[in-house]
Amino acid sequence: MKVKVVTNILEANDRIADENRRIFQEAGVYVINMMSGPGAGKTSLLVRTIQEMQKKVKIGVIEGDIAGTDDAERIDSLGVPVVQINTGGGCHLDANMIREVLPDMPLNDLDLLIIENVGNLVCPAEFKVGEDMKVMLLSVAEGHDKPLKYPLMFQESSALLLNKIDLLPYIDVDMAKIRKDSLSLNPKLKIFEVSCKTGQGISEWAQWLETLVKK
Amino acid sequence: MKVKVVTNILEANDRIADENRRIFQEAGVYVINMMSGPGAGKTSLLVRTIQEMQKKVKIGVIEGDIAGTDDAERIDSLGVPVVQINTGGGCHLDANMIREVLPDMPLNDLDLLIIENVGNLVCPAEFKVGEDMKVMLLSVAEGHDKPLKYPLMFQESSALLLNKIDLLPYIDVDMAKIRKDSLSLNPKLKIFEVSCKTGQGISEWAQWLETLVKK
Repeated sequence: MKVKVVTNILEANDRIADENRRIFQEAGVYVINMMSGPGAGKTSLLVRTIQEMQKKVKIGVIEGDIAGTDDAERIDSLGVPVVQINTGGGCHLDANMIREVLPDMPLNDLDLLIIENVGNLVCPAEFKVGEDMKVMLLSVAEGHDKPLKYPLMFQESSALLLNKIDLLPYIDVDMAKIRKDSLSLNPKLKIFEVSCKTGQGISEWAQWLETLVKK
Repeated sequence: MKVKVVTNILEANDRIADENRRIFQEAGVYVINMMSGPGAGKTSLLVRTIQEMQKKVKIGVIEGDIAGTDDAERIDSLGVPVVQINTGGGCHLDANMIREVLPDMPLNDLDLLIIENVGNLVCPAEFKVGEDMKVMLLSVAEGHDKPLKYPLMFQESSALLLNKIDLLPYIDVDMAKIRKDSLSLNPKLKIFEVSCKTGQGISEWAQWLETLVKK
């Protein structure tokens, strides 16, 4: 008897991610893995995106947090199916956590499933969960040195949303450097500038996302 | 022969952290493990703290980053001994990384060693490196929901610096809630409000730190 040893925790994760992806494809749902550092505005972006797209696109949300249900409650109030995962100290979502909650998500009724990862600019980028694409947020208040200091997430993401641009008059941040360094890491990265506070830039992002979902 | 099995990676780390701590105590140097999410202003706080204390306290710095040497260059320009650790993807500093660079740090000439951890509000809180105390920063732009969502770092830290208070007029953040939730997690937490941009609050923090170093 041959024993297959799974030597790599990432390899084991990728196998489950592939299974999740097959389930998503069979249900015809487009899946985003949304990542950022803490407090960059993922949940606020979700709220804005749902409000913008809700009439045309059926959206569901999986919320990942170390602790608490605040974010899921914000989403629930919009009338969108939402499931909260608490990692209990874990620094990222993995494919198995997503698999566990899929029975609670009405996949066949959805066009788009958005998975909000734990707020962490490092670890989530290493773990596929079965998504069609990874999307990342960066609060412009975090500074222009982030692409070169946290390169993996910029490399893994298909889109980068630069959030909180309403704060630009009050902070010292070189937006051209963020763009240049991000694109040097990932020339195909699609970059949006948004403010989840004022709503600026949200419709451009939502329109782009809609074309992907409707493909 | 009895084989001792180290079952727990944290246990192995703690053993090395204890050795580091003994080295620090023999050298008579007080050690801070400084943590925060990405872009909360750890390096800016270091620069301000060094400028404020440099005449009275001999300071050295160990910089932890996934990639790059920007932060170490900022510290080096202040004429302070600094060593850069690049974790190469790793999401936190551990005790062994610190042990490896100690020969490059003139411990016997120092009163205070500040270790700047990787920008991550989750993983660094789990790993002792031999420090006397952990200190954390939170940018007020990250929002008031952070204590309850990332409880461990608030529980492990002795001091919390709420940075970027110059942005308070432009953001929706409930400072009273941050204080209340932080203190509910850790009643002994010492809280400072600072702006590394304007310098506000820095001297109060530096004076408190000086009393600990001089003990």
